[in-house]
Amino acid sequence: MDPQPFGDAERSLMRTALHAAARGPRGANPLVGAVLVDATGRILHVGHHRGAGTAHAEVDVLERAASAGTDLRDTTMYVTLEPCNHWGRTGPCAEAIVAAGVPRVVFGAPDRTTAASGGSAAMRAAGLDVRSGLLADEAEQLNERWGETMRAQRPFVTLKVAQTLDSRIAAADGTSQWITSSSAREHGHDVRARADAVLVGTGTVLADDPRLTARTGDGGAVARQPLRVVMGLRPVPDRAAVRGTDGRFRHVTTHDPHSALAELYDAGVRHVLIEGGATTAAAFLRVGLVDEIALYQAPLLLGAGRAAFQDLRIGTLAGASRWQLDPTGGGPVQQLGPDLWIHLRPTA
Amino acid sequence: MDPQPFGDAERSLMRTALHAAARGPRGANPLVGAVLVDATGRILHVGHHRGAGTAHAEVDVLERAASAGTDLRDTTMYVTLEPCNHWGRTGPCAEAIVAAGVPRVVFGAPDRTTAASGGSAAMRAAGLDVRSGLLADEAEQLNERWGETMRAQRPFVTLKVAQTLDSRIAAADGTSQWITSSSAREHGHDVRARADAVLVGTGTVLADDPRLTARTGDGGAVARQPLRVVMGLRPVPDRAAVRGTDGRFRHVTTHDPHSALAELYDAGVRHVLIEGGATTAAAFLRVGLVDEIALYQAPLLLGAGRAAFQDLRIGTLAGASRWQLDPTGGGPVQQLGPDLWIHLRPTA
Repeated sequence: MDPQPFGDAERSLMRTALHAAARGPRGANPLVGAVLVDATGRILHVGHHRGAGTAHAEVDVLERAASAGTDLRDTTMYVTLEPCNHWGRTGPCAEAIVAAGVPRVVFGAPDRTTAASGGSAAMRAAGLDVRSGLLADEAEQLNERWGETMRAQRPFVTLKVAQTLDSRIAAADGTSQWITSSSAREHGHDVRARADAVLVGTGTVLADDPRLTARTGDGGAVARQPLRVVMGLRPVPDRAAVRGTDGRFRHVTTHDPHSALAELYDAGVRHVLIEGGATTAAAFLRVGLVDEIALYQAPLLLGAGRAAFQDLRIGTLAGASRWQLDPTGGGPVQQLGPDLWIHLRPTA
Repeated sequence: MDPQPFGDAERSLMRTALHAAARGPRGANPLVGAVLVDATGRILHVGHHRGAGTAHAEVDVLERAASAGTDLRDTTMYVTLEPCNHWGRTGPCAEAIVAAGVPRVVFGAPDRTTAASGGSAAMRAAGLDVRSGLLADEAEQLNERWGETMRAQRPFVTLKVAQTLDSRIAAADGTSQWITSSSAREHGHDVRARADAVLVGTGTVLADDPRLTARTGDGGAVARQPLRVVMGLRPVPDRAAVRGTDGRFRHVTTHDPHSALAELYDAGVRHVLIEGGATTAAAFLRVGLVDEIALYQAPLLLGAGRAAFQDLRIGTLAGASRWQLDPTGGGPVQQLGPDLWIHLRPTA
């Protein structure tokens, strides 16, 4: 942490970077935003990270600068998190900043991961003026739950639920296709495409035989497919659609969410999307292993049928599972055709 | 209907009036908006109706003009619905327009009620230039369901539900105070204060002993209290809070929503707010007698407990009770503290 104080103007710039960060989706990576300013403090470009596999915020802003032909010789980059120093799905940001010729960097929170830290040291070694700690608490808070998953060495967990207004995921006779509209289902496929793994319980496989592939609006498969995971002790039928033919299928033979996540983390999974059913969702909710909920709510009432949430072992209102509206990633509420998408995160 | 065509400029003015109309709350009165323009077509004032007991849109816009000292001698008023010609809780708008000296009026849909119609004839008789039919379909659509209640001579019915994300209105042990936040409850009291009657089933009275009075943020009673109605065959205990001491209590001894509404209509009730429980709500939903739903949704999960909706006699998804997001009255979605308010109306 640098001892020299930051002024209001710099705080305002970092706040702009934080707002940009919050536009991104939660998942395998933290939410990060970056702002590039000229020598007078005027904002030239704003960038943010859009989820695993896409450019980091720093590279996003550098790409915008390159497209615009911006002269970087006397600029400063404000970035909410310490630029990374490792090769993941994308190259190290510290190196990209040095190579681009940005002479000054101010970042918020330090990178606490062992894999990616060291970015500031690398930039200083290359002669850059690097300061840190500006609105660090806000940057940490924005990624609080993600930080917990890193420390626990487990994947970030998104629970997706598509329900009626009365929280049903199927009618009394079991019919469930489709509760939500095509707009909502397309949004769901985008979420799926960003995840490393999509997980359902054996009950859902036996009841619905889902494919679990990420598809585009016209039904085609997207290029990068998440691992398809079935959790539970019952066997997965040989002809189950979820097995597919691309080898990206895994049966995790446990009922324990901790074990399931540990196995998936070891297999390289950093973001799991749980898509059903209620028993599997409840197992993760009961042990506090859901990091965000993506709730698709269709304007229907059924009055009976399969409930989306059950067996949470909560007896009284004071013991309720408490959530809060999450404004990140386009949230907290979006209208998708006739439906609502409601984005929630655990209360701190 | 006037044969002369309206131009784009006039359509645009009426569209502004329609947008203003949609800001008002649904209930005993139709949604109406009005725009006052000068001789060049420039908008001077925009007004709308804010619910039973408050100024009609025409009077709202005239009051704004009076406050601003606007010269009305060469103005035109665009109003979405034919100005009324009767004394209800407020005076006749046709008379107010004539008295104010507005020389020209263009309205959208005709007033089809026997009580309030005749406004255009009255204004013409007073020498005003009155044209009609501009965007009449849009104005009718905006109040389609309200028009149905008028034709059926029954009150407009709002169903209010305060539920968790998993559509519970009480935990397994029956605890339910409070599922929603104080912000949501205050909003609910505003809705209550606008209604002519608040209705619950006998089951809710026996389980929760609610007062059903409309209260302000600090707990005080508002001046105009809705009639407190209990519906059902079981007796209401002598000491039930709902009886109160002001005589504004009524026990409707029937299970049939049609009979209950007919009795209340005869007693002068034009807007009923149903506040529970699930059995009463289901009775009205099953026969299509809910005109809007005000859904307060708290970010909690319970996994068990009393369900908000049940016994709708729907067996399959194709038979679902279908609703649509209603953007009127501040909808379709509002964030109230930690909670969401979701506004719905039946699909046409």
